[in-house]
Amino acid sequence: MDIKGVNLGNWLVLEKWMSPALFEGTTAEDEYHLPRQLSKEVYEARIRVHRSEYISERDFLAIRRMGMNAVRIPVPYFIFGDRPPFIGCIKELDRAFDWAEKYNLKVLIDLHTAPLSQNGFDNGGLCGVCRWSQTPGEVEYVLQVLEKLSVRYGQRKGLLGMEPINEPITEPMWKRMDVPSRYPASDPEQAAGSAPNTLEFLRDFYTNAYNRIRPHMAEDCFVVFHDGFQMKAWKDFLTRPHFQNVMLDTHLYLMLAEQDGCPRTMDGYLAYIEEHYAQDIREVQEYVPVICGEWCLFNSYAVGVDTRGGQSVLNGMEFSGNKERFTPEQKKEIYRTLANALLSAWSVGSGYFYWSYKVLLDTCGDPNWIGWDSWDLGRCVDEGWVRG
Amino acid sequence: MDIKGVNLGNWLVLEKWMSPALFEGTTAEDEYHLPRQLSKEVYEARIRVHRSEYISERDFLAIRRMGMNAVRIPVPYFIFGDRPPFIGCIKELDRAFDWAEKYNLKVLIDLHTAPLSQNGFDNGGLCGVCRWSQTPGEVEYVLQVLEKLSVRYGQRKGLLGMEPINEPITEPMWKRMDVPSRYPASDPEQAAGSAPNTLEFLRDFYTNAYNRIRPHMAEDCFVVFHDGFQMKAWKDFLTRPHFQNVMLDTHLYLMLAEQDGCPRTMDGYLAYIEEHYAQDIREVQEYVPVICGEWCLFNSYAVGVDTRGGQSVLNGMEFSGNKERFTPEQKKEIYRTLANALLSAWSVGSGYFYWSYKVLLDTCGDPNWIGWDSWDLGRCVDEGWVRG
Repeated sequence: MDIKGVNLGNWLVLEKWMSPALFEGTTAEDEYHLPRQLSKEVYEARIRVHRSEYISERDFLAIRRMGMNAVRIPVPYFIFGDRPPFIGCIKELDRAFDWAEKYNLKVLIDLHTAPLSQNGFDNGGLCGVCRWSQTPGEVEYVLQVLEKLSVRYGQRKGLLGMEPINEPITEPMWKRMDVPSRYPASDPEQAAGSAPNTLEFLRDFYTNAYNRIRPHMAEDCFVVFHDGFQMKAWKDFLTRPHFQNVMLDTHLYLMLAEQDGCPRTMDGYLAYIEEHYAQDIREVQEYVPVICGEWCLFNSYAVGVDTRGGQSVLNGMEFSGNKERFTPEQKKEIYRTLANALLSAWSVGSGYFYWSYKVLLDTCGDPNWIGWDSWDLGRCVDEGWVRG
Repeated sequence: MDIKGVNLGNWLVLEKWMSPALFEGTTAEDEYHLPRQLSKEVYEARIRVHRSEYISERDFLAIRRMGMNAVRIPVPYFIFGDRPPFIGCIKELDRAFDWAEKYNLKVLIDLHTAPLSQNGFDNGGLCGVCRWSQTPGEVEYVLQVLEKLSVRYGQRKGLLGMEPINEPITEPMWKRMDVPSRYPASDPEQAAGSAPNTLEFLRDFYTNAYNRIRPHMAEDCFVVFHDGFQMKAWKDFLTRPHFQNVMLDTHLYLMLAEQDGCPRTMDGYLAYIEEHYAQDIREVQEYVPVICGEWCLFNSYAVGVDTRGGQSVLNGMEFSGNKERFTPEQKKEIYRTLANALLSAWSVGSGYFYWSYKVLLDTCGDPNWIGWDSWDLGRCVDEGWVRG
């Protein structure tokens, strides 16, 4: 298994920073609040045009042409359309499978959000709230969504696997990110009682999810578990004899390395990649296939300012006077060197998915975005930063 | 001057067939009727999301990476926002110039529509109506729009030129296309009196347009006149001594060659390209630089059915049982051969713009669209049909 893939981020699960225009005229910071600040008609119009234009058949061809063999598709819990005011998107996923199969790509279905959120991140759909795992009815709801997805796609030729939940946060990351401050809840009452998920809960949820979806999935498809930002906590769990074709997903961003104390220099990054990423993957890959399901080239050194863990202009961070620090040739050299090191780390495991395929940033209109184009694999390939 | 360019079709001037979802839930066939069938809020929501997502900075990079050096940007007459219910898009064009300059692309501003239409095509914005040139107030309005555009962009480094009006139809094409039948007007009263433009009118309009915009434009920029589908009718006009840096734009689609009796075979196309396209361009290039401002690889032979001059499923043409006629390798061979022949014809002149950069067709969801992906330069390059 040598997965070379890319995430179709911001297509079916919105992140404001990746397409700010979708959120125009509102103060919503996340997907949950967007329909609550727009009329039903306007919300629907924005969402439908976005879904039809952001990703279409042509993108699957482009991704194949980049040398990829897989896409990871984040989907929301309301994909079946049973959670108004949200609009379902199962037809879009159907189409994605048709396109993936036409262009020889495999699909990893990634349930990216849960009601009341599994992490409190903006990309979890509801900033500052993390109460899903404390709400048994919603845990059961998610299991039902997963089961329905497995029934619908479990035998599709294009299916690579299913990931029951993306980035369920656990205590160390909850503290490191200081979620309540970094992603302030707009409704403190809704956030009250928020707390990281426990590993006990996750083991239980993963077991239930496995049992509900595995029977519907073709044998060679994978059930992919996110590590909750604790790559080494899963050995006993994942080596249980009755698990077949399970996989661990870990997300390794350089901005997290920076938060962990990695120096913002090329030597610093390269050492960190070898000593932490490659080593950890090597260790884990001994007992379970591991993929890096999210990563990108973005880092403070290349951007030229301390991004404070990837905080953006949309987090209220203004990098006033932001300018390119390096020439295009220097940037190419930096990114290529990092890409080689990172790709070589992922190749110790079972592969990777870049985050993300496409980001709608305007570095001319807002210089605060200078350097953020490295989140966009299309741009990275076109710039020659990653070899397509 | 060796222009290698692509049109940013369907971005600021809509064509239903290029993004059907924008027109969903309406019976509108053109840009004029879309806002008349939607609430103000929904129309605005659709248009704003479309404009922000269909083309963004990343596309200018992609176009440069394809080896292009220019983009032709169709803009509507209401670009300055003074014609409700339409929404202006001058900010989008501002941004396009920023992006073009960043990625070393030149911009040809193409006024693609006029009030009451200059051709009656769907892409003229108002099907079946062609009364602009008979309405002096609207002719003057268009001249003012052109003048304002020249004041705003005339000294921009990124400006290649301005094209006063796209495809003003004249009698031969009006008859050949049978515009009133092919593009039936939804309001017969509005269409009453429609007729092709005369060459006298066009010469007069082009002279006025030249005089209004040339003074504001940098000397090395071009004023580009569309030939009204009569490539050889402009010698005396274009060689007037007071014209500086004028250029002729001719649109040469294989589907028009088919309508002209060109056999739907490879030999037929190749002979037609050499005997008509290359020869005509050679003759005209003697006295004025000529570009092929719109062309594409689309043809009935490769599609496998008679497309009747490019009529689509949206024109009510159902190609039932449409399947790929050729293997991917055969298609690549066909398209590469045609691309070489066509590019070599354009190189006899001053260059070309492909139509179009991007089309949102789903060939899986609706097999009627099989073969239409050749309208999309991104797909052509990714498929290896045109060398990027």
